[in-house]
Amino acid sequence: MVEPAIALFGGAYEKASHVLEELLRETGARYVLLLDRKGFVLAHKEALWAPRPPALDSLATLIAGNAAATQALAKMLGEPRFNELLHQGATYGLYAEEVGDLALLVIIFDNTAPVGRVKLFGKRAVQSLEVITKEALVEPGTLGIDREYHAGASALLDELFGN
Amino acid sequence: MVEPAIALFGGAYEKASHVLEELLRETGARYVLLLDRKGFVLAHKEALWAPRPPALDSLATLIAGNAAATQALAKMLGEPRFNELLHQGATYGLYAEEVGDLALLVIIFDNTAPVGRVKLFGKRAVQSLEVITKEALVEPGTLGIDREYHAGASALLDELFGN
Repeated sequence: MVEPAIALFGGAYEKASHVLEELLRETGARYVLLLDRKGFVLAHKEALWAPRPPALDSLATLIAGNAAATQALAKMLGEPRFNELLHQGATYGLYAEEVGDLALLVIIFDNTAPVGRVKLFGKRAVQSLEVITKEALVEPGTLGIDREYHAGASALLDELFGN
Repeated sequence: MVEPAIALFGGAYEKASHVLEELLRETGARYVLLLDRKGFVLAHKEALWAPRPPALDSLATLIAGNAAATQALAKMLGEPRFNELLHQGATYGLYAEEVGDLALLVIIFDNTAPVGRVKLFGKRAVQSLEVITKEALVEPGTLGIDREYHAGASALLDELFGN
């Protein structure tokens, strides 16, 4: 089972939501999402005027997969990875930028919104989001509690059955 | 066996090469490639100052696969497809734009080259390349010659064996 690498709760989630809301207002974008690189949606906001977005979980999985697939391409050119992706269609654009090592910021905008503006404010939001996500890392070290519990339970059972 | 959908020979190849050479000069890019959407390299040029490029066939296959993978993403947003892709790393950028339905123009540039310039001249080159590739389509209809040959050979054999 794949588990998210970042968990945004309480204050951290509020802060991230606030950054996304600001970004939406500044860029005039349609939807903004903060994703775990594994494809989980950590936070998202949509413009008031925008229609219901497509299934965000599927979208997030596709974008994360896509970002991972471009890494092979980046390596061929001798880059550790591409930190910015921009896809443009006839009416919509999709801009993704990495937030630290483990998250992605995704902005979906109408082509009426200037790309330069989307990139500029996107980069600014990434700086704030990087700080927020860094504090919300899920540490694999917390598994130590389980090991302790396991040892304690074993000892208790041994005692009960007189081994 | 996958066969290319476009075959650039003689005059058409010369014309396409000329367009790519111009593009290289105008944008200050490192490598430019014209690809079949299936991943074949139709024509390519590299800047005189650029070091030996990575294996172009592998690069072409990866880029074509990547462009195909983004189509699922485009469809989710209600776009028939993304006609422009831009990947940017710390030192290199990769810009891909579709040339008609079957080909892709790829520009690999150093981040010192302004993206706006790459896009502008890229779009101009696409217009010329679209005309050139349209005339170089491999028509499945040319199989008709084989059918004729087959019928002729059968008739000849029938005659030989007196059927």
